[in-house]
Amino acid sequence: MSANDSLQRLHEVIESRRQGDPDKSYVARLFHKGTDAILKKVGEEATETVMAAKDGDREKIVYEVADLWFHSMIALAHFGLSPADVLRELERREGLSGLEEFAARKAQARERQGD
Amino acid sequence: MSANDSLQRLHEVIESRRQGDPDKSYVARLFHKGTDAILKKVGEEATETVMAAKDGDREKIVYEVADLWFHSMIALAHFGLSPADVLRELERREGLSGLEEFAARKAQARERQGD
Amino acid sequence: MSANDSLQRLHEVIESRRQGDPDKSYVARLFHKGTDAILKKVGEEATETVMAAKDGDREKIVYEVADLWFHSMIALAHFGLSPADVLRELERREGLSGLEEFAARKAQARERQGD
Amino acid sequence: MSANDSLQRLHEVIESRRQGDPDKSYVARLFHKGTDAILKKVGEEATETVMAAKDGDREKIVYEVADLWFHSMIALAHFGLSPADVLRELERREGLSGLEEFAARKAQARERQGD
Repeated sequence: MSANDSLQRLHEVIESRRQGDPDKSYVARLFHKGTDAILKKVGEEATETVMAAKDGDREKIVYEVADLWFHSMIALAHFGLSPADVLRELERREGLSGLEEFAARKAQARERQGD
Repeated sequence: MSANDSLQRLHEVIESRRQGDPDKSYVARLFHKGTDAILKKVGEEATETVMAAKDGDREKIVYEVADLWFHSMIALAHFGLSPADVLRELERREGLSGLEEFAARKAQARERQGD
Repeated sequence: MSANDSLQRLHEVIESRRQGDPDKSYVARLFHKGTDAILKKVGEEATETVMAAKDGDREKIVYEVADLWFHSMIALAHFGLSPADVLRELERREGLSGLEEFAARKAQARERQGD
Repeated sequence: MSANDSLQRLHEVIESRRQGDPDKSYVARLFHKGTDAILKKVGEEATETVMAAKDGDREKIVYEVADLWFHSMIALAHFGLSPADVLRELERREGLSGLEEFAARKAQARERQGD
């Protein structure tokens, strides 16, 4: 399964729970509590990622980054956005910097030829 | 892009710049500065995501979450990890909670039948 | 210094630089950039405090907490507030919890007498 | 009461609860949970300060900065430090930058005389 597929599927799970019962679903509860509760989790998971990385604990790093991305996706859904929007932005940058690198390599090649 | 994995490709771009020239590549520079510089960026981008979301500025939210994921991926690469590890963890949870939900639905069905 | 208030004096220094030349004063520059730039620093310094503490580096902890408090004070000033407001809130809580503890001790004493 | 006095008194309250009963005292509970639990709170309160400031809610800003300073003080105590160490660092900087400003003013005065 490609990343786009698995993130998209997770996004759909998040969306499906959005209107769920806050007493039964963690995701429904977060949406119900609103913007600040969701954003607080984004901040929390970033701090936990930093602490796991300072411990150099690879298993914990994966776990905390998963938490960070998961809660970012809840924030995205809360604002009518999806991981596809983020992946598109990341691809756009990769394209830009690819061009940039190409330009840099050409410039270096020119310099070398100038020697 | 849907067949190929855009996060995986971005991970490969990050890996390819890892040993690059810190004077020319932002990514090479961050790796060169080390753990704290990378983690500081994770914390910063989380704060910027929170601020963009408080502004309700959807374009900025996408931009800042892209920054947050991008720098999390640099942190992952720094510790010999990749987005595939994070996606696997997210899929594992989705599976678990899917089962959990299934179990819950079965329990509810049983209760209804018990009425 | 014990009679005079060092936080209050620092607050006055911050206030005095508020309208200063952004090219010459770091504090004037931050005020000039506005709310998001100031809050970004609060987030950054919190992350740096966390990292210094994970290193167990006591000198760095003091340095980073000083940075965190300093930038919180710039945020306070930006909203027309001062450290005196924060200290008053902290004293109010200390009073409350002092009373709470007193109540708890009385309750325990009563229980012991009841034995 | 000066800031130094009230922060010092709060520090003593924190120290006195350090060995208290985790079931009765929030502060004892945090110390008992250890470094990561304390630092997580520092990160959380920084995020809440940022959100309160984005709302422009002055009462909430005071409340959240009080929380941020309070939990920083628990972190300080956890590492055998006190607010006096932080205030000393802040005073040292104020002194340095005072000198810096003095130097800058002298330089400007010299330039003006040079006209």
